[in-house]
Amino acid sequence: MKPFIHDDFILHNKIAQEIYHSYAKDLPIIDFHNHLSAQEIYQNNCYRNLSEAWLGGDHYKWRAMRANGLSEEYITGNAEPFEKFLAWTTTIQYAIGNPLYHWTHLELKRYFDIDETLSVGNAKEIWDKCNEKLQSSQYSVRNLLRKQNIEALCTTDDPIDSLVYHKKLKETGFEIQVLPTFRPELAVGIEKEGFTHYIEQLSEVTDLSLDHISDLLDALKLRLSYFIDAGCRISDHSLEDNFFEPTTYEEVDAIYRNKLNGAIISNHDCAKYRGWLLTELAKEYANHGIVMQLHIGALRNNSTRILKNLGSNVGLDSLNDFNYATQLSALLDAMDETDQLPKTILYYLNPKDAEMLATMAGNFQANSIGIKGKVQLGSAWWFCDHMRGMEHQMDVVSEAGLLSTFIGMLTDSRSFLSFPRHEYFRRILCNKLGTFVERGEYPEDMKSLELITQNVCYYNARNYLDL
Amino acid sequence: MKPFIHDDFILHNKIAQEIYHSYAKDLPIIDFHNHLSAQEIYQNNCYRNLSEAWLGGDHYKWRAMRANGLSEEYITGNAEPFEKFLAWTTTIQYAIGNPLYHWTHLELKRYFDIDETLSVGNAKEIWDKCNEKLQSSQYSVRNLLRKQNIEALCTTDDPIDSLVYHKKLKETGFEIQVLPTFRPELAVGIEKEGFTHYIEQLSEVTDLSLDHISDLLDALKLRLSYFIDAGCRISDHSLEDNFFEPTTYEEVDAIYRNKLNGAIISNHDCAKYRGWLLTELAKEYANHGIVMQLHIGALRNNSTRILKNLGSNVGLDSLNDFNYATQLSALLDAMDETDQLPKTILYYLNPKDAEMLATMAGNFQANSIGIKGKVQLGSAWWFCDHMRGMEHQMDVVSEAGLLSTFIGMLTDSRSFLSFPRHEYFRRILCNKLGTFVERGEYPEDMKSLELITQNVCYYNARNYLDL
Amino acid sequence: MKPFIHDDFILHNKIAQEIYHSYAKDLPIIDFHNHLSAQEIYQNNCYRNLSEAWLGGDHYKWRAMRANGLSEEYITGNAEPFEKFLAWTTTIQYAIGNPLYHWTHLELKRYFDIDETLSVGNAKEIWDKCNEKLQSSQYSVRNLLRKQNIEALCTTDDPIDSLVYHKKLKETGFEIQVLPTFRPELAVGIEKEGFTHYIEQLSEVTDLSLDHISDLLDALKLRLSYFIDAGCRISDHSLEDNFFEPTTYEEVDAIYRNKLNGAIISNHDCAKYRGWLLTELAKEYANHGIVMQLHIGALRNNSTRILKNLGSNVGLDSLNDFNYATQLSALLDAMDETDQLPKTILYYLNPKDAEMLATMAGNFQANSIGIKGKVQLGSAWWFCDHMRGMEHQMDVVSEAGLLSTFIGMLTDSRSFLSFPRHEYFRRILCNKLGTFVERGEYPEDMKSLELITQNVCYYNARNYLDL
Repeated sequence: MKPFIHDDFILHNKIAQEIYHSYAKDLPIIDFHNHLSAQEIYQNNCYRNLSEAWLGGDHYKWRAMRANGLSEEYITGNAEPFEKFLAWTTTIQYAIGNPLYHWTHLELKRYFDIDETLSVGNAKEIWDKCNEKLQSSQYSVRNLLRKQNIEALCTTDDPIDSLVYHKKLKETGFEIQVLPTFRPELAVGIEKEGFTHYIEQLSEVTDLSLDHISDLLDALKLRLSYFIDAGCRISDHSLEDNFFEPTTYEEVDAIYRNKLNGAIISNHDCAKYRGWLLTELAKEYANHGIVMQLHIGALRNNSTRILKNLGSNVGLDSLNDFNYATQLSALLDAMDETDQLPKTILYYLNPKDAEMLATMAGNFQANSIGIKGKVQLGSAWWFCDHMRGMEHQMDVVSEAGLLSTFIGMLTDSRSFLSFPRHEYFRRILCNKLGTFVERGEYPEDMKSLELITQNVCYYNARNYLDL
Repeated sequence: MKPFIHDDFILHNKIAQEIYHSYAKDLPIIDFHNHLSAQEIYQNNCYRNLSEAWLGGDHYKWRAMRANGLSEEYITGNAEPFEKFLAWTTTIQYAIGNPLYHWTHLELKRYFDIDETLSVGNAKEIWDKCNEKLQSSQYSVRNLLRKQNIEALCTTDDPIDSLVYHKKLKETGFEIQVLPTFRPELAVGIEKEGFTHYIEQLSEVTDLSLDHISDLLDALKLRLSYFIDAGCRISDHSLEDNFFEPTTYEEVDAIYRNKLNGAIISNHDCAKYRGWLLTELAKEYANHGIVMQLHIGALRNNSTRILKNLGSNVGLDSLNDFNYATQLSALLDAMDETDQLPKTILYYLNPKDAEMLATMAGNFQANSIGIKGKVQLGSAWWFCDHMRGMEHQMDVVSEAGLLSTFIGMLTDSRSFLSFPRHEYFRRILCNKLGTFVERGEYPEDMKSLELITQNVCYYNARNYLDL
Repeated sequence: MKPFIHDDFILHNKIAQEIYHSYAKDLPIIDFHNHLSAQEIYQNNCYRNLSEAWLGGDHYKWRAMRANGLSEEYITGNAEPFEKFLAWTTTIQYAIGNPLYHWTHLELKRYFDIDETLSVGNAKEIWDKCNEKLQSSQYSVRNLLRKQNIEALCTTDDPIDSLVYHKKLKETGFEIQVLPTFRPELAVGIEKEGFTHYIEQLSEVTDLSLDHISDLLDALKLRLSYFIDAGCRISDHSLEDNFFEPTTYEEVDAIYRNKLNGAIISNHDCAKYRGWLLTELAKEYANHGIVMQLHIGALRNNSTRILKNLGSNVGLDSLNDFNYATQLSALLDAMDETDQLPKTILYYLNPKDAEMLATMAGNFQANSIGIKGKVQLGSAWWFCDHMRGMEHQMDVVSEAGLLSTFIGMLTDSRSFLSFPRHEYFRRILCNKLGTFVERGEYPEDMKSLELITQNVCYYNARNYLDL
C-alpha cells in the first residue's frame, strides 16, 4: 500500500510532480524567520524524547489537545512524557483537515523514516522507535538542521541580546548560517508594563543615558549596527492596533518622557510614538539594506485565567479584526516620502486582510535600484499557515502582483523538527503552478516554470536578504 | 435519465459515497436550533397547500422572488395560493447556484417522492400532487417530523413563555423530544422600544418586583429553572454591536433603573448592561450545564418602507460588518475568569469573521471535565447556509481546531419541511471527508472516517447537549 | 501544438464549451462602464505603436512592472517605446496567475491574430507585427470597437462636460452607441481641494448662481437633463468613507455655504452633505429611470512621493477596509423610504465586503414595476477583476440572490484594446454554469442554461439600462 507520505504527496498533476521533483525538492532552505534558540544550536543537545521535541513548547498542538477536551495535566502539566504523547496521539489521529496532521506525518517520515500514520494502536511502537533515534548524536539539533538541508536561518532577538551564542556558533565553523533578527518589540511597546524597565536595561547595554527619544533612537541604531556586525539581515515588528498617527519630534519626545515619569499613555499617544519610532527605524533599515518585517493583527493572551496559570505563548492567542488600511498606508508613506522605505514584508494574520495588504504593497514598489517585490506580502502566517491558507496567499500574490518575485516560506517555529514545512510549502506551490498549466491558464513552458519555482523556493530569499 | 436528486447527489467520489451511505444517512436527527412552533406540533395539523407550507413564512424565498422583480402581491400579498406558487416556480426555475434550488428539490423528493425539477411546465401537476398528499394525515406536522427520523428538536422561546405546548406534547407521549430553548432576547435588549413593557410582563410571570438589575437576574434564573424542568438544554442570544464593556454592579443597576424611568440608553451603557447580564446568565448556564449559543452579526429591518407595511422577519435583514474580536474576547474572558464559561457555540453571519471566530473559540477551550469542543464554531448560519458556506465553515473548523468535535447541523427554520437540510449537510460533510481521502490528505482509514462522520452528524450533539 | 488561446480556453467541461460557443460567444457587447474618450472615438485615430496602446495609460501594467523592480524610466518615463515594450515583456512573461497574462494573450489573439505567448525571445517580432497592423486604418479606434462587436458603450463624464464629442459622433452616424455617464464626483466631494473652483465652473456652465445647496441641486438636475438628452442612461459615484449621516436641509445648506466661505469640513459634515446630495440625486435618477452605480472602497494616491512626480491614476491606489454596512443601509433606506431608490448597482473593491453587499442589495429589491435585480451586486471591480474574483462575485450573487438577473460585465477600462475582457468574463461564466451541471447541482436543461447565459451576457444589461 502506498504510504501516507509518498513521493507525490499533494501533487495532483504531472506538471506539479515534475517541477517539484526536478526543481524544488533539492534546493537548500533559507528559513528567514523563526524562534529557534542560538544557544541550543551552539550546545547541540539531543531531545530526551518525542514529547519534549513535539510537545515541549508547541502551542499549536496544545490548542488542538484542548479542543479535544483533554485536561491541562496532559498538555502543559505534570503527566508523564508518554502519557502526554498518548494524549497527543488521540488528538492528532482524527485531526482531518488540520495542518498538524500533515506536519506530524512529514516529520515522522523525514526525521524518523516512519511510514505509518500515528494512532493509539501504534503509539507505543512509534514512541520507542523515535526516542531511540533521538538519543543518538545523529539527532542532535545541528544534525537535525543538516538533515533538512538548511543553508541559513534567522532567529528572533531583542536588541539588548549580546548574541553571544550566534558568535560562538560562528566560531565553531558550523556550516549553516545562524543569523540574528533585530526585533525591538519592547522599545516600540510604550504602552506595555515593562517599558521603563526595558529602557533602563537598554541604557545599561549601550552605556547611553536615554533621557530623550533621540537618545533611544541612537541606542537602537547602535544595537542595529552591532546586530549587522553579527550577520543580521532582517528586522521584525509585530503591529497590533494604534501604530501610526502624524506627529512631531517634540510631541513624541514629550510622550516618551512622560512615560518614563510614570504617565499612562493614551491610544493616540501610543500611535504617535510607535509611528514615529517605526519610521525612524525603517529609515535606518533602508540605509543598511536591512529587510523590515511587519506582522499585523494578532490578539494575544485572551484567557486571563490560563494566562495567570501558565503565562504567555501558551496558546491563548487568536486573530484580531481591526481595520488598518489607512493607518498602514500613512506609516509606509511616511517612510517612503524621503525614499527611505526599506524592503518590507507585510504579513496578515486575518485572511480577510490579504487582498487589502497585497494591493497596499503594490502602492510602494517603485524603486530605482532594481529590487524585485520591494514591498511584498509575506507567506501565510501562523493561523493561516495551512494548505488553504497558503493557496490563498499565493492566489492573492499572483493576482495583485507577481508570484515570481515572492521570497517564499519561513517556519516561524520554535521547534527543530519543523523544517519539513518548507517541503509542504514547496509541494503546495508546485501543485498550484502545475494546476495553472493543467487548466491551460499558463503555457507548459518548463523553463519559465523552473525559473519561477526555484526563485520562490530559494533564490528570491537569497537575493532579497543579500545573503 | 438519472433524477436530479439521486443516491449520490453532490457526493463526488467513492469514499464520500461510501461513508454517506454506510455511516451518515440513517442516523437520527437532532435539530438543536430552530423556530418551529410547539403549539403546531401539539395541534398536529396539516398544511392546506404547498403555498402555505413553502411560502407562508419563508423570507429566504421572499427575497428571491423580490430579486426576480415580482410584485409583493405574489409574495406577501393577496394573490391566490396557486398564483403565488407559480410566481415561486418562475423564480426557482433559474436559481442556479442558490441553496433554495437544492432545498426545494430535496423537499419534493423526500416528502413527496417527486423526481422532476420544478418548472412552469409541470408546476400545476406538482401543485396538485403535493396538495393531495398534504391533506392526508400522513402529512400532519408530527408525521412530517417522523418521516425525517427526528430524535429531538429545540424550539426558540422567550423566558416568559409558559411552555404549555411543550408540556402538553410531552404528556401525549410523542416520541420525538421537543425541547424549549431559553432566549432572553428582550431582557438583554435594553435599547429596544418594548423593554420596559417586557420587564413588566416578566415581573408578572415571576411575581417578583424587578426594581433592581439583581431582581431581573433572579427572575431570569427562575425562568431558566422552569425551562430546565421542561427539558431545556440550550440557550440562545443574538449579538449585534455594543455587547460588552467593563463595568460594575452599581453602574449597571443605575443604567437599568434609569431605563425603567424612561432614560435613553447610550451605546456605552448598552454595552455595559448587556455585557454584565450576559456574563451573569452565562455563569448560570455553566452551573446547570446549559449550552450557550451566540449568533453574531445580523443587521435587521433595513428597509423602513417595507417594515412599515409588513413588519419584522419578512426578508429585510442582512449582514453587518462591524469588528468584534476584542469585545467578544473580553466577554468570554469575563465568563471564563471564574471558570464559569458554559459550553458555547459561536455563529458568524459575515463569512469574513469565520477565521477570527474559530481561533477565538480556541482560546477558551481549556476545561478539566473533558468537554470536547467546549467553545466551538457553529454551523454555517442563515445567509452562510449554502454549499460553499458550509464547506468554508468546515474548512475553518478543521484548520483552526478539530472537525471531529463539531456538533453539526441545525435548520434554524420556521418550516416543518426543512429537515432535508440535514441530509444536505451530511452529503456536504461526507463529500468533504471523501475528498480529503481522495486527494491523499487523510488516509483511507474507514474506522476513523466512520467515527468522525457519525460524531459530527449525531453523537457530538447528543453528548454536548447531554440529551 | 494547441495555441495558448484556443477555442476552449478556460472552459473545463463539455457543457461549458457548448453553452459558450452556442449561446455566449456571438452576442454583441454592451460595455456600460468605462473610461474611454468620446473625443478619441470621434477623431478615429490609430495608435502609433503597441507601447502607446498598451502602456500609455494602463496603471495595472505599471504596477506589475514596478513589482518586477523596473525603474520608472521604463514605466512612465522617457525610455524608447520598444524599450518599454521589452520591459513589459520581461514582466508579463512570468506573471503566472495574474489576469494581465490572460488579457495580454487574448488581445494578441483577437486583435492581431497572434498565437504565440509573449516572451523576450519573440518580443521584437510581435512588436513589428502588431505595429504594422496598428498603422492601418483597419485598426483605428472605431474599427477596434467594431472588431469586438460592441453595440453600446458608456463613457464616464463630468456634469459640466459639453458632451460635444458624443454629439458629433452621433451626427457621423457611427453605428455603435457611445453614451455619456453622469458622474458628479467633484460636486459630491465637498472635502476635496478643488470643490469651490468646481462650483464656480458649474455656475458658469448652468448660468445659475449657486449660493445655496438647493441651487447646486438644481444645477445638477439641469445637467442631468442635458446628459439624458445626449443619451445618458446611467450615473456613477465613488464612495469612500463618510457618505451618510442623518441631517436636515438647513444643516446641509449651512455646511455648503461654510465651505464656499473657506471653512474646513469635518468628517461628520462631509457625511451629512454627501448623504443628502446623493439621496436627492438618487431620487432624480429614479424619476428618469437612470441607473445609479456606487463604487465603494478605494483608497487612492497612497504614495505621496510618486504622486508628486506623476499625479493621480498612475497606480498608487489600493483597497480600503472600512466597515460600511450600517452607513450604506441608511443611505439606501433614505432613498427607498419614498420609493425613489433608483435601479442601483453596488460594487465592492474589497472582496471581504462581497457577501455583506450582496445581502444588502437583497433588502431593497422590492418593487412593483417588475425590475429584475433592481439593486444588485456589480461585476468584480478593478483589483477583483480576475478569474477567482469573478468566480467569487458570481458565487455570491448566486447564493444571495439570482445570478440570472445579473447585468454582467463592463471593462472599466481606459484602453480600446480591453474588450476581450468580455470574452474572458463570458468564458468564466459559462465554465461556472457548466460546472454546476457537471457536478449535478443544476439539471442539464439547455433551454434554461441558454436563457441564463444570454441574459447575463447581454439581455439583462439592455433591459436594465433601457437601451
